[in-house]
Amino acid sequence: MPLLLNPNLAATFPPPVMEARRWLEGVDFPADRPLLNVSQAAPVDPPPQALREAIADVVLNTPEAHLYGPVLGLPELRARVAADWSKAYGGTIDPSQVAITSGCNQAFSATMATLAKEGDEVILPTPWYFNHKMWLDMTGITAVPLATGPSLIPDVNAAGALIGPRTKAIVLVTPNNPGGVEYSAETVAAFYQLAQSHGIALVVDETYRDFDSRDGAPHALFEDPDWADTLIHLYSFSKAYRLTGHRVGAMIASEDRLAEVEKFLDTVAICPNQIGQRAALWGMENLGQWLAGERDEILNRRAAIEDGAPALPDWTLLGCGAYFAYMEHPFDIPSNELAQKLVQNAGVLLLPGTMFTPADDPAGARQLRIAFANIDAAGIATLFKRLATFAP
Amino acid sequence: MPLLLNPNLAATFPPPVMEARRWLEGVDFPADRPLLNVSQAAPVDPPPQALREAIADVVLNTPEAHLYGPVLGLPELRARVAADWSKAYGGTIDPSQVAITSGCNQAFSATMATLAKEGDEVILPTPWYFNHKMWLDMTGITAVPLATGPSLIPDVNAAGALIGPRTKAIVLVTPNNPGGVEYSAETVAAFYQLAQSHGIALVVDETYRDFDSRDGAPHALFEDPDWADTLIHLYSFSKAYRLTGHRVGAMIASEDRLAEVEKFLDTVAICPNQIGQRAALWGMENLGQWLAGERDEILNRRAAIEDGAPALPDWTLLGCGAYFAYMEHPFDIPSNELAQKLVQNAGVLLLPGTMFTPADDPAGARQLRIAFANIDAAGIATLFKRLATFAP
Repeated sequence: MPLLLNPNLAATFPPPVMEARRWLEGVDFPADRPLLNVSQAAPVDPPPQALREAIADVVLNTPEAHLYGPVLGLPELRARVAADWSKAYGGTIDPSQVAITSGCNQAFSATMATLAKEGDEVILPTPWYFNHKMWLDMTGITAVPLATGPSLIPDVNAAGALIGPRTKAIVLVTPNNPGGVEYSAETVAAFYQLAQSHGIALVVDETYRDFDSRDGAPHALFEDPDWADTLIHLYSFSKAYRLTGHRVGAMIASEDRLAEVEKFLDTVAICPNQIGQRAALWGMENLGQWLAGERDEILNRRAAIEDGAPALPDWTLLGCGAYFAYMEHPFDIPSNELAQKLVQNAGVLLLPGTMFTPADDPAGARQLRIAFANIDAAGIATLFKRLATFAP
Repeated sequence: MPLLLNPNLAATFPPPVMEARRWLEGVDFPADRPLLNVSQAAPVDPPPQALREAIADVVLNTPEAHLYGPVLGLPELRARVAADWSKAYGGTIDPSQVAITSGCNQAFSATMATLAKEGDEVILPTPWYFNHKMWLDMTGITAVPLATGPSLIPDVNAAGALIGPRTKAIVLVTPNNPGGVEYSAETVAAFYQLAQSHGIALVVDETYRDFDSRDGAPHALFEDPDWADTLIHLYSFSKAYRLTGHRVGAMIASEDRLAEVEKFLDTVAICPNQIGQRAALWGMENLGQWLAGERDEILNRRAAIEDGAPALPDWTLLGCGAYFAYMEHPFDIPSNELAQKLVQNAGVLLLPGTMFTPADDPAGARQLRIAFANIDAAGIATLFKRLATFAP
C-alpha cells in the first residue's frame, strides 16, 4: 500500500548527518588509520565536571525542574540572556523579547512559522544550512538561493534583486555554517537596511557567536532602537557549554512576535526541557572563563587549518572559522560521491557541498565541509596528510 | 509598524493553559480558601526519589547523555517500547516502528506534517484537545469537527459522512482529553475499519493509557498484521513517571512513515533530549509496580468525583476518567466567562469547554474540564463544596 504522504515532506531530503553516518556501515577502519569524523558540528566531550555536578544537584534538589514550565522558557534564563546580550551588543533587549527553545533549529522553525506560509519565499545565501532548507521545503515555502561565490559572503544588491511580493525574510548565518566565514558588521548592516526598507524580516542565526574570532560585538543591529521591527536573532547553548544532547536554544524578537511563537512552541514542545534550561543558566553564570578557553582552543584549531591548507596545493580553503573549514576539492567527481570515497579510502567522514547547495548549483559538487572542532592540532595534521595522499 | 505575520498563525488561539494562568493575576486567594488549580493535566509532584537518583547518576556518569543522539531516539528506549507494547496489545511492533519525540505534542505535529498540508482536512471529535486544533490551524489544515453529543463518544457513521477527497486522517484520543471517557475496543475498531476503507490514517493518541480503568489491551488494532498501513499511535512518558518537564513522548507507525518523521524531527528538534529519554527508560525498567500504585490512586480520585457529583444536582457529569472530569454547568453564562468568575468567587481554576470546541458550537459554552489528578479525596470534597455554593 503506498504511503499516504504530504508531498512537501516527500520533496525534501533525509537528514544529512544521519545519511552520512550510514556511509560508515560495512567499512573497515584499521587500527593504524582510525575513522576521522569531521561530519557533525558538535563537541564530542561532555560538559565540564562542575556543570555536570550542578545539573545533578538540580535533578536531586529542584523538584520543579522535573515539571512543566512556561512555554517561552525559564524566566531567569530569559532575563540573563536579555542582560548579557544587551551588554554584548550595546542595545536594549528586554526579557519579554527573549524566548528559550528546544535547540536553535526549533528557534528557526518557530520563526518561520510566524513569518511565512506555503507559497511564500525566504532568501537563503548558499551554501545554506541544510535544516533551514528542509524546514522551508516541508512547509511549502520556497527557499530562494542567493549564491555567494568564492568569497562565501552574500552580496546585498544580489539579494535585493531577489526580493518579490511573497518574500518574507532573508536569513543570515554568521559565523557561517557551513562556510566558516564571519560576516562583517557592514555586511550585516547592509542586509538589515535592505530588509527594513522592504518591510521584511532579517533572521540572523548566531549559533557560533561564542567562537567568533573578533572581539566586541559582531554587528550593531541591536543599537537601533527599532531593531525589533526587523531583526530576529537565533542562538544555541549547545556549542558553548557542550549541551548538544540537552536541546536548548534561544531567539530574540519583538514581544508581539513571541506571542505568536508561543502558540507554535506550545503545540510542538509545550516547553523546553527544564533540566537543560537550568544547565544553560548555570553555564552563563559560572563558565565565562571556561568558555573563553574553549574559544581560544577553537581559534588555535582554526589557525592550524589555515596553516595546513597550503600543503594541499590543488585544494582551496574558501572559508575557515567557527567550527568549519569549507574547501574546494580538485577532483573530477561530485562531492557527494567523493565524500563516500573519502570514508572508504582515507577514513575521513565529512559532508559534501551538495548537502548545502541547490541541486542545480554546480558549486556544491566541488565543495566539502570539514567540522574541525572535534580534532586537535595532531588530528588536523593527520587529516591533511590523509587528504594529501588521497586519490578517488 | 504592523507585525509581518503568517495568517495561519494569526488564525489560531493563544495557548489555553497560559491564558488561564493569566486569570489569576491580581486575584487574592485568602488563607482559608486557597487556590484550587484543576486547570492543567500534569502531576505537581516530581518523579519518585529513586528515579531522580537514577537521573543524577546518568548526568554524572554517562558522558554521551549530554551529546546529540539519533533523531528518532535512543535505540534501547525504542526497543523497550516495541517489546512492551507488543506484549500489552498482543501485536507485533518492531523497534524500527517506534520513534521517540520531545513530548506527545511533538509526536502529533510530526504525524500531521507527514500526512497533510494546507488545504487538507483532518477529522477531530469534539470536544477536541486544543493543541491538536492549534497545530492544524497553524499549518493551514482544516480541522473538521465531529460533534460527540452528551455521551462524548464519537459516532463512526457521522465520521464517515465527513470524509471527503482531502481528508487525510481521523484523530482519536482515548482515554479522552478533555472528556475523560474511555472509548470501547469496538468503537476504536470501527474507526480503524472506516479509516482503512478510505485509505486514510487513524491516529490514536493514548497519552493517558496508563490510567485506563480497564485491565488488558484497550483495543485490538495492533493484532492486525497490517496495522502499520493505517494506524499511528501516540504516547507520552510525562504522566506515567511524572516527567512533564523532561519532554519525552513516542509514536508508533510504519518504518516508511518514520523515515519522513525523521526529516521533520531533525529539523524541529535534532533529537529528543538525552537525559529525559534515559529517565523514561529507567522508569519502564523499574517503576512498573510504582506506576500500578499511581493508577490505583487516580482511579480512587475518579471514584471520588463520581461519588461526589450527585451532590451538585443541577450539574451533569458527562465524562470521568484519565485525569479528567468533564461537566455541564447549570448557569446562563458561557463557560469562558464562568471560568473567570470561578477563579474570583470560588478560588477554582479550571478550563472552560469553549477551549475545546469550535467557536460556533454551543455545547462548549455549557461545559467545563476539571483536571482532578492533582487533588486528593479531601481536595475533591472541597472542590464540590465550593461548586455547590458558587453563584456567578
